[in-house]
Amino acid sequence: MRVVGKAMLFDSPPVIAGSAGVAGKKESEGPLGSDFDETYQESLLGCESFELAEALMQQNCIMRACADAGAAAGDVQLIISGDLLDQCMASAFAVKGLAVPFAGVYGACSTMALSLALGCVIIDCGASCVACAASSHFCSSERQFRFPLEYGGQRPPTSQWTVTGAGCAVLKNAKAAADGVRITAALFGTVRDLGIKDANNMGAAMAPAAASTVYEFLKSTDTAAQDYDLILTGDLGFTGSELLYELMEKEHGVDIRGVHNDCGMMIFDREAQDVNSGGSGCGCSASVLCSHIIKKMRAGALKKVLFTATGALMSPTSSKQGQTIPGVAHAVLLEV
Amino acid sequence: MRVVGKAMLFDSPPVIAGSAGVAGKKESEGPLGSDFDETYQESLLGCESFELAEALMQQNCIMRACADAGAAAGDVQLIISGDLLDQCMASAFAVKGLAVPFAGVYGACSTMALSLALGCVIIDCGASCVACAASSHFCSSERQFRFPLEYGGQRPPTSQWTVTGAGCAVLKNAKAAADGVRITAALFGTVRDLGIKDANNMGAAMAPAAASTVYEFLKSTDTAAQDYDLILTGDLGFTGSELLYELMEKEHGVDIRGVHNDCGMMIFDREAQDVNSGGSGCGCSASVLCSHIIKKMRAGALKKVLFTATGALMSPTSSKQGQTIPGVAHAVLLEV
Repeated sequence: MRVVGKAMLFDSPPVIAGSAGVAGKKESEGPLGSDFDETYQESLLGCESFELAEALMQQNCIMRACADAGAAAGDVQLIISGDLLDQCMASAFAVKGLAVPFAGVYGACSTMALSLALGCVIIDCGASCVACAASSHFCSSERQFRFPLEYGGQRPPTSQWTVTGAGCAVLKNAKAAADGVRITAALFGTVRDLGIKDANNMGAAMAPAAASTVYEFLKSTDTAAQDYDLILTGDLGFTGSELLYELMEKEHGVDIRGVHNDCGMMIFDREAQDVNSGGSGCGCSASVLCSHIIKKMRAGALKKVLFTATGALMSPTSSKQGQTIPGVAHAVLLEV
Repeated sequence: MRVVGKAMLFDSPPVIAGSAGVAGKKESEGPLGSDFDETYQESLLGCESFELAEALMQQNCIMRACADAGAAAGDVQLIISGDLLDQCMASAFAVKGLAVPFAGVYGACSTMALSLALGCVIIDCGASCVACAASSHFCSSERQFRFPLEYGGQRPPTSQWTVTGAGCAVLKNAKAAADGVRITAALFGTVRDLGIKDANNMGAAMAPAAASTVYEFLKSTDTAAQDYDLILTGDLGFTGSELLYELMEKEHGVDIRGVHNDCGMMIFDREAQDVNSGGSGCGCSASVLCSHIIKKMRAGALKKVLFTATGALMSPTSSKQGQTIPGVAHAVLLEV
């Protein structure tokens, strides 16, 4: 690995040997529904609580990704995963039956990029097989961060809909997997906070971090936005994406409109599904990347994708205490 | 890096170029009080909330460790840190003013070993300077996990006292820092759950994970307990440590009594300070390692320390839902 500017460039780029994206009912009815590897029509997945349902969903996703990579549980040297729940409960309960070493990470909705970036470093350093995952669940998240589900509070236009979904990518070193999508670079983001306090406007809280991370990546790698097939943020939604365009132009003079899309804008039909500013949650970018995007890359329809997942680092406590929302964005470069 | 069994052995072992351990008033009055680099006599540190006080304490600790390492903020390529608060609030707010890339981790009280293990991989892979940190605060933790502070609930004999403290170690590659304590190996732990449900008996919940991690490390590196000056768990406390001895003997036939100590047993005077089974919290093992232990290693009084931090991966939600407590333990080997 070489550190160039703020980017880490991998000498022997890890290969995504297998992946899986799973999702809930509403997501299965959206534009990407047919790309998910498994969908659940029932919120509880047969479990006692939404939290355990999320854990089961993440576990299913990890096992599907391992199967896709031709890896038995014993082949996986480390699972790196995270979620939105207090103390990352979904991840702890997802992995506890798997008997695989586990590193828990927390990056709010940026978790999938964070786990991939760390996974790449470990593979580049000498490991042979690492699984990177993230999940979120509408029912476990909404009641934790906002209101009891039964309350039915009205959602403002800037609010996003927490995705019920999970994604997992199994990384192998280049020797172990000759073919596949490679991750050639990563950039760990810096926390930015421009003073947004509204937990129903996370797009605005995360956009400054996304702008910094995308700009630092382009600068460190001496590339232009047009060098990428896709700069994929997740999950700024419609409000945050507009703010990202504005910040990129005003702060850095860079226009990314032509090559940008956002997992939060892609996963739902904005009008038909009544999701206001789009999807959110670690499971949003995780499930979209690990199903739809990787399938398109494997088919050759996309060749160079800068995946920049964004996270709003507030907690219910910090929100109740009137604190601002720090944002962070981590990036990995996928190439085929 | 070479993966041998479950251990990762570093080809060019990262050096702990600087470190700092800070703590609160009660900790300053304990047996290790004089070893902390800074202590705070007031729980709020002048902040509006205990959560922000914890964030400030962690930030102070990171800056002290950087100063000890002769590193300006701009030299640090990544801060890896975590804490016990929902959504790792203390870490997010600690780093948001520092303008350094940030990777959040969650391992409950195992966080210091988790951040060190990941930091070592990144240094071994090619980075030059990474800061690894963890914190906890009695007041922010107790009210989150158990009862309002004002309630004054009676504490059972197995309960542990959450440490107000933080630790940070700044890792550099061997080229950048010739001298110092080196981390020569790491092992990411596997989650174990033997069915403990009592959040006031975390030692019992974590002991099985500690036993697995210590045993796997000895097996993978083909070493015996007696090859170490110290096998340092953190923070099983008195109850958990006794269970660790029992599990190591019954499951693996290994007696570690002669070389074992536990950060939760070391940080307080058990009788005089009324802490029942000892200290706990990510800040316990972090502050003890990054002040007392590293100072002893620098002075040559300890040469080979297997630091095995242990975490109880319950959340207030999982406890209220009657779930068991999954445990995890991560290990790093410090040598001088």
